[in-house]
Amino acid sequence: MMTNNKHVLCVEQSEQTEMSSVLQVNPRVRAIRAPTRLQSVAARITQQIAQGANKPFKKVIDVSSDDPHRMGMAPISFVRQVLAVCLYPELLEEKTLPLDVRQRAKRLLGVCGGGSVGSYSTATSGLPLVKKSIADFITKRDNGVSSHPENIIISNGSQKTLSLVLHLMASGTGVTQTGVLTPVPSPHTLPMLIDLSGVKLVPYQLKEEAGWAVELEELQQALATARGDCEPRAIYISNPGNPTGHVQDRKTMERVIRFAAAEGLVLLAEEVNQDSVYGQGKEFISYKKVLFEMGKKYAEKVELISLHSISTAPMGECGLRGGYMEVLNIDPAVYKYLRNIQLTSSPPVISQLALEVMVNPPTPGDLSYKTYAQEILHTQTMLSQNAQRACEFLNGLPGINCEPAMAGVFLFPRLHLPLKLVEEAEMLGLEADVFYCQKLLEEEGVCLGAGCENGQDDQNHHIRLCVLAPPDTLEEVLARLRSFHLRLLYRFP
Amino acid sequence: MMTNNKHVLCVEQSEQTEMSSVLQVNPRVRAIRAPTRLQSVAARITQQIAQGANKPFKKVIDVSSDDPHRMGMAPISFVRQVLAVCLYPELLEEKTLPLDVRQRAKRLLGVCGGGSVGSYSTATSGLPLVKKSIADFITKRDNGVSSHPENIIISNGSQKTLSLVLHLMASGTGVTQTGVLTPVPSPHTLPMLIDLSGVKLVPYQLKEEAGWAVELEELQQALATARGDCEPRAIYISNPGNPTGHVQDRKTMERVIRFAAAEGLVLLAEEVNQDSVYGQGKEFISYKKVLFEMGKKYAEKVELISLHSISTAPMGECGLRGGYMEVLNIDPAVYKYLRNIQLTSSPPVISQLALEVMVNPPTPGDLSYKTYAQEILHTQTMLSQNAQRACEFLNGLPGINCEPAMAGVFLFPRLHLPLKLVEEAEMLGLEADVFYCQKLLEEEGVCLGAGCENGQDDQNHHIRLCVLAPPDTLEEVLARLRSFHLRLLYRFP
Repeated sequence: MMTNNKHVLCVEQSEQTEMSSVLQVNPRVRAIRAPTRLQSVAARITQQIAQGANKPFKKVIDVSSDDPHRMGMAPISFVRQVLAVCLYPELLEEKTLPLDVRQRAKRLLGVCGGGSVGSYSTATSGLPLVKKSIADFITKRDNGVSSHPENIIISNGSQKTLSLVLHLMASGTGVTQTGVLTPVPSPHTLPMLIDLSGVKLVPYQLKEEAGWAVELEELQQALATARGDCEPRAIYISNPGNPTGHVQDRKTMERVIRFAAAEGLVLLAEEVNQDSVYGQGKEFISYKKVLFEMGKKYAEKVELISLHSISTAPMGECGLRGGYMEVLNIDPAVYKYLRNIQLTSSPPVISQLALEVMVNPPTPGDLSYKTYAQEILHTQTMLSQNAQRACEFLNGLPGINCEPAMAGVFLFPRLHLPLKLVEEAEMLGLEADVFYCQKLLEEEGVCLGAGCENGQDDQNHHIRLCVLAPPDTLEEVLARLRSFHLRLLYRFP
Repeated sequence: MMTNNKHVLCVEQSEQTEMSSVLQVNPRVRAIRAPTRLQSVAARITQQIAQGANKPFKKVIDVSSDDPHRMGMAPISFVRQVLAVCLYPELLEEKTLPLDVRQRAKRLLGVCGGGSVGSYSTATSGLPLVKKSIADFITKRDNGVSSHPENIIISNGSQKTLSLVLHLMASGTGVTQTGVLTPVPSPHTLPMLIDLSGVKLVPYQLKEEAGWAVELEELQQALATARGDCEPRAIYISNPGNPTGHVQDRKTMERVIRFAAAEGLVLLAEEVNQDSVYGQGKEFISYKKVLFEMGKKYAEKVELISLHSISTAPMGECGLRGGYMEVLNIDPAVYKYLRNIQLTSSPPVISQLALEVMVNPPTPGDLSYKTYAQEILHTQTMLSQNAQRACEFLNGLPGINCEPAMAGVFLFPRLHLPLKLVEEAEMLGLEADVFYCQKLLEEEGVCLGAGCENGQDDQNHHIRLCVLAPPDTLEEVLARLRSFHLRLLYRFP
């Protein structure tokens, strides 16, 4: 029975079918860590419900990913109006659409090949107008630290952008293999991406009791341990942190920059949560700004790649697939290779136009400004309130401890699981946090993320929870989670 | 002077700046063949004109790529109407849009997470409804040879799809490195893609004088030569051929299938031109259909991956980035790895919906059918007439010989270049066909593709010309090409 269950429950593996064709699969692909089965279990349950199966819940609520529209968040009207007109230019004459929507669409269409979003934009690593708008946005955001369109590369999402960079840097094997210092916890999609790119993941632990801050000693220790094992050549920073919600202060950032400079590491700054900081007294400062304010010694030396995306709050346009990177102080010959990779894949034009609207939104006086500002404020307020509400709720449950988030869309609470439960999970061949999430999914129809997907080791159990959802959905999630959690503690006293 | 010119004109190289950081670039990335500079020269000239530079032409016409909207071809209205409504669902109430447009959009929105195209579709390698429509389309197309949604993987364009597969297959080094038999000429984006994936390109020559047919002896010879040099594990077929316009007959396809079966090669069938066959008496037959009609021995054995895309004629939606592959007879354990790669990158939802409309268009009786059918017919007729017109025109010029195309959007004529011109190109460090195209671009503002980009060797000069353009644009291209060509022959007698 147990053994049977194991096959149902455990992480997918295929050791039983090592046929020759499998052995011929790219070793990098074979080395990708197996995904947890949570998403497919969720899909299976959803299908069962559709086929009339009797469950104690009406539908599965998936809060494991930063996928706000899926959870019922509305898109920003101005973005969608402009894109709709770009797709179907006959709407340029549609008087029920605001004039500034149509003017923007007309301008954007004017820079598409043949005036159509159906043309490639391969040759230029993104539409020049969009790159210009991005550079202007960055310059303004950083109080005048100037940004140049030629340093911007547009891609389809920050994950894809990062995978271009990792692919560029991947070289060597064994002790010469490129290593990337990676936070624990990291964004949950990052470990698979690093595996696939053939780069070695060098973990550094964030300090949970300090609200998930980066600590210099931990970076130094991680680097020292890694050397001799691989060749660490970059450090990945997620700020504001995914999934931690931590916002770094200037002092910490200066320390990180000095560390990267001293150790010759490329600084990969994932800054996609820059527009969703809500913690009291917290503000987003870009790594680029800090770098430039530290003077030429750093500003002209540290190799910095900063990532942003249209997938994050408040826009949440994950399905459009759009993002960009700004690249600084990279050897021009290396940069050329990056653009060569880019030549083999052209980002969707629609998502580039969405990027343009994100970085260049309506301003006071524009017809659409009021609605736009209201929608943004609505999302930001809801996010902030939800994060606070959920954090307090979780901290009220026995055996759960949640650091308050200051930004971003996730909470990442710690589970203090009963030893017996951990042992049962072990017997089933599962991480205890995966076991917890799977049981929750089966019994209550709530899909959380398991902390191990964020790189947490198996002594240290966490769950991941996106709080950017309509408040009633969040309440439903919390209520179901509470029922399950208390029941579980009763079962495993 | 000459040396100076060389730096201006020649293919970009960087041998002068081999700094340590360049040496640390992924060797696969460094191994990507350098792109010709034609596109960037075209962009530079366009910019010069915008800045008021005096040129003998008003604008650059780029016919080097299969990018029909850029050249002025209109999108299919039904596709764009549906997508516009999906982006901005308030248009569901817009009575000026046909009812079937709004019904389709409503149905498609119903399968998007949270009813929004802004949600990820990562978990399922594409939206299930879209995969079902694709499978139904294939089944109908192949007269009942059944297709199953679980064998469909959606990706952002056929290039991306292919790069997933190549990445999966890439393994070994030296004599154990995976090799892929690749036609010469091949689609012009293919060689860079193969380089980047770390797979070895094993060329097989198509027979120009037989209208670019595949010949079995050539395949056998290419394979025999490659063995001992690498481990050939797949054969790439472009049918209908890009850039050749050749349409394979059933006998040839049977031969290719028997060859792949006997040699244990995966059959990579790029069939993106399946909807643009116009040659007298020619028809598209899918590799899958032929495979199944050859009986179980082949139908259940040969590993077949077939690619299709929304970028090709008649839709030409390159900028949306959408395509799919159907995967047959692949070891389930290997297939699982393919899906793991896919998990790291979610295709744009908008392009998936465009795919759905492509494979499931309006039918007789639907409100939009008449317009849809007219638009498709218009494009197909224009393509056929343009191809014939351009072929006759080119064959009328001295030193140009063009095989008639039967399908697809390209012509691929041969240039018989004067020896002196070839020598001058050589002195400039350029392929002669690149030199020809660059001169044409500078003197007449027409950007053609150089045959070497399609893998043609330097003894064998060709140009590539997309003929899917409004007829007056095509006439303009032909007239400018004629002036230049005759002038060139006069200069190099």
